[in-house]
Formats: sequence, structure tokens, C-alpha cells
Amino acid sequence: MKRMNRSGLQDVQVARYRAGAREAFDDRVAVEEPLEIRIAGETFAVTMRTPGHDEELVLGLLLAEGIVRSVDEVGGIAHCGKPGELGNVIDVTAAPGMVIDWEPEGALRRATLTTSACGVCGRQSVDDLLARVRPLDDASRFSVGWVERLTRELGPRQVNFAASGGVHAAGLWSADASSVIVREDVGRHNAVDKVVGRCALDRGLPARGRALVVSGRASFELVQKAVVAQIPMLVSVSAPSSLAVAAAREARLTLVGFARGERFNVYAGEERIEA
Amino acid sequence: MKRMNRSGLQDVQVARYRAGAREAFDDRVAVEEPLEIRIAGETFAVTMRTPGHDEELVLGLLLAEGIVRSVDEVGGIAHCGKPGELGNVIDVTAAPGMVIDWEPEGALRRATLTTSACGVCGRQSVDDLLARVRPLDDASRFSVGWVERLTRELGPRQVNFAASGGVHAAGLWSADASSVIVREDVGRHNAVDKVVGRCALDRGLPARGRALVVSGRASFELVQKAVVAQIPMLVSVSAPSSLAVAAAREARLTLVGFARGERFNVYAGEERIEA
Repeated sequence: MKRMNRSGLQDVQVARYRAGAREAFDDRVAVEEPLEIRIAGETFAVTMRTPGHDEELVLGLLLAEGIVRSVDEVGGIAHCGKPGELGNVIDVTAAPGMVIDWEPEGALRRATLTTSACGVCGRQSVDDLLARVRPLDDASRFSVGWVERLTRELGPRQVNFAASGGVHAAGLWSADASSVIVREDVGRHNAVDKVVGRCALDRGLPARGRALVVSGRASFELVQKAVVAQIPMLVSVSAPSSLAVAAAREARLTLVGFARGERFNVYAGEERIEA
Repeated sequence: MKRMNRSGLQDVQVARYRAGAREAFDDRVAVEEPLEIRIAGETFAVTMRTPGHDEELVLGLLLAEGIVRSVDEVGGIAHCGKPGELGNVIDVTAAPGMVIDWEPEGALRRATLTTSACGVCGRQSVDDLLARVRPLDDASRFSVGWVERLTRELGPRQVNFAASGGVHAAGLWSADASSVIVREDVGRHNAVDKVVGRCALDRGLPARGRALVVSGRASFELVQKAVVAQIPMLVSVSAPSSLAVAAAREARLTLVGFARGERFNVYAGEERIEA
């Protein structure tokens, strides 16, 4: 391990084997570090992430989990420690006159937890989401050609992926592509939280008419993050899960999977796709 | 959404676009469902997973998080609800005379949480792991040819990936390949927990001389799971993170990345690789 540079990459020396031949090789890996998130000084969660854009990550996560409903509830999000130091502890304070309502211990768990006599099930996970956020009523339409371009345009923007192969990317496109937010992180959920957090800081939520493109698979949690941000279309280059499809259909999110240039599948919300 | 079959896959109808042409298509997606894990009746965590091998998943998770140190501390792991019903609530009870020591609320968070005046950092995450588990003293050696074969052999065993493209796989190989445990799940951590849990149920821990192969990237958390199970080599088909490399070097785990047949990189513990 040598130096960590500011780009979220770190140099490491490795042994590279090719058909049995060994050579020393200078590789670059994506940086993974823990981040402790505090709310008014109390620990809310610790998450592994690629350092950088931490304020966005925290805001996006708090929105997705329903801990805050708008950026206006937040007074400040600031790293603890000396100014200029890249820290791993960040503290969230409420806006004047606001209260961030959460319970120390168990907040994140409770947000995704439904308990009843019969236990949890996918049906309840979807119902919980819809109890928090109304189904999308976004009348945006997306052309087939635009869907085809989205994954082509994400690739060249995956700077750290190109260098390390070790990070996921998420990108949020406005309908005319005049605004594009792309973030990379070792965690694919983090990349989405950073994009949504940036959008919230820019007062861009609800993100009507936009498309969220992710480099990995589409899980229920990613559908949840898109729906909470009121993004009408989620495009994944890989497979969706059963619960992602079910949640997208009920929340009226357009869900595109296996999007690779001119090939893609539409799993939900096809009414927004037009020739 | 139609039926869910027992294999962890579900049939869905999708619209497939190819160069602008649309056709209806019957696709299969990986099943994702929440699982509520209880310890003696109290909720410990809720995790999304592909149903099946839930007992293994829970045992592997409890071992990785240090909630139990051995399968002998566990009396039973059983689904709640009617026998024969595939449930999403599972309860863990301690073995007679044993106590499973955890605190309702926050147990999982505390296990990965280090707080101090200066906050969390990667250095502390590694120290925490080494405080729980001693560095590997496994003198096993692995030939270059064997490392080359491991990823080739995982591929044909990824049954649900072949059908859905939506699941990760983990496989645990004994040195002579006489024992191979492969599990698939929508979560790559889950796939590893299931493999380690199976190994624990078979009284196969510590897993000396074995190799763990994963279909995704190698994060700190996967290194932690391998070290806790005392598996001497972790092979990833993709990239490791900076903290995965640092933790593997300190714990004396052999960490192989970008393993694709005869091409692979060794990031840590190269002394176990021999020509």
C-alpha cells in the first residue's frame, strides 16, 4: 500500500500471472473506507464507501430511508475533525426549527423492517414503500433511441471503473441531457445515494423527467431509492430481482434491465417508452 | 408476475427491444425476499435474500459478525410458521447451557462499528477484525494451475446465473476438489454466508486448506468472512478494494483478484501460490 490519491484510487503492488508467467505489476484499486454518520452527534450508521462526495452520500441515504423528507429539513452536513482533513466521521444537524426524527439504535433497521404475526414478505416491503411515497404520476416519455444512448453514455464517464475495475457507477440524466450527474463508489447503493444527494442539494427533487442509470443489478433497494426521489425511469445494465420488478410495477416506475446499447428489456412501466 | 418456482427463480413477462424492434418475451428473474432473523424470538436483523438455504445463511452471518463463535453454541435454527411453508422469519435458539450474547437493537451495527475520539478508519476496521480472529497460520500451498481451474469450475455451477443473470455465486473448494459447496443469491454477501454456514453445519470450520471463490468484487466484508472462517485463500473474478487488500495482508489471507482462467492477480499472501 502506498499513497491514496484524491481520486478514490490507491496504488498497490501485485503479482500478475499470465499463462503461468509471473510479473510484478503496479495496480490501482478503488478506495474503501468506513464512514460513521452521526445525527446531532449520535451515531446513526457506519457504512463502507469510497471517500468523496460524503455530504451527498449522507443526504441521499437519509432521504432513501425516510429519515428526512427534504433537504430543507437539514441544517448542515459536515465532517468532524480538522478543516481540510479528509475525515471518516460526518455529522448531520437539523435546520433551524426542524427536528430530525429518529431513534438512536435501530433506525436503519426499522426503516426496512416490517414485523407482523405472519412475518415479513415481499408484498409488505412494497406496501411499506407505497405507504411512504405515492406511485409516480410522471407523464414523461422516453424514446427507444434515448434508452439506447443512456448506457453508451455512462461507460465513458466511469473514470474510476476504467482505472480499477472495482467501482460501481450511477448516473442521473435530465431528458435533454443538459444535466448529468455521475458518481462512482465501491458500493452500488452508495453511488445512487450520492447522485440523489447531489440532486437534492441542487434543489432538483422530485427528479421528474429524469432517468437513473446504474452499472450493476437492480435490487428492491435501488427501486426504492428511485421511487423516493420520484425518478420515473431506472435503467440497469444487468438483471433486476423479482422484488425490484414487483415494486417498480406497483410504484409505476419504468424499469429497464440488461440495457446494453440497442438491446434492452422493459420490466415495468413500458407506457413511458415510445418508438 | 406468475409463479415462483423452488429454484430461486421467477417467471416474468417483459418487452424485449432489439435494434428498435419490440417483442414480448418470457424472462426469468432471481427471487429476492426479505428474511427476518430472530434470536430467541427477538428481531436481530432483516436482510434481503434469495429464499433457500436460510439456515446456512443465518449461521454464516452470525459467525461472520462474531455473534456466535461456533455452531456448537447454536441449538436450533428454524423457520417460524407452519411446517412445509416457505417462511420469511427464522429463529435461532442457543444450545442447552449456552447463551447467545447480543443486544437487541444495534447488534449488527456494533459489530462493524468502531468509535473513538478520532472516528473510524480503515486501520481500525482491520484491527477490530484481528482482535476477534488471529491471522491465518495455514501452511497450505496452491498451485498456479489450481488457481486457474477454480474460476473455470465455478462458471458451470452457476445454474441460476445462467438462467437469470441476476445472482452472485460463492464456492468453497477443498484442496483435492473432493468437496465443493456452491451457493447462489441476489446478495453476494449472502452467497458467502450460505457457503460458510453449510461448512459450519458439516463441522468443517476452521476451513483449513480450502479456497473460496466469489463471482463478484472482493470488499473488506468478504475478506472478513473468509478470515473468520479461517479460509486461507479468497479468489474473486473481479477487483478487490483497498481495504480488502490491506485486511488480507494483515490477516495473512491469500487474495486473488481478476481471476479469469489463466489470468489472475495476487494482491496478498503470495507465499501460498506455487508454480
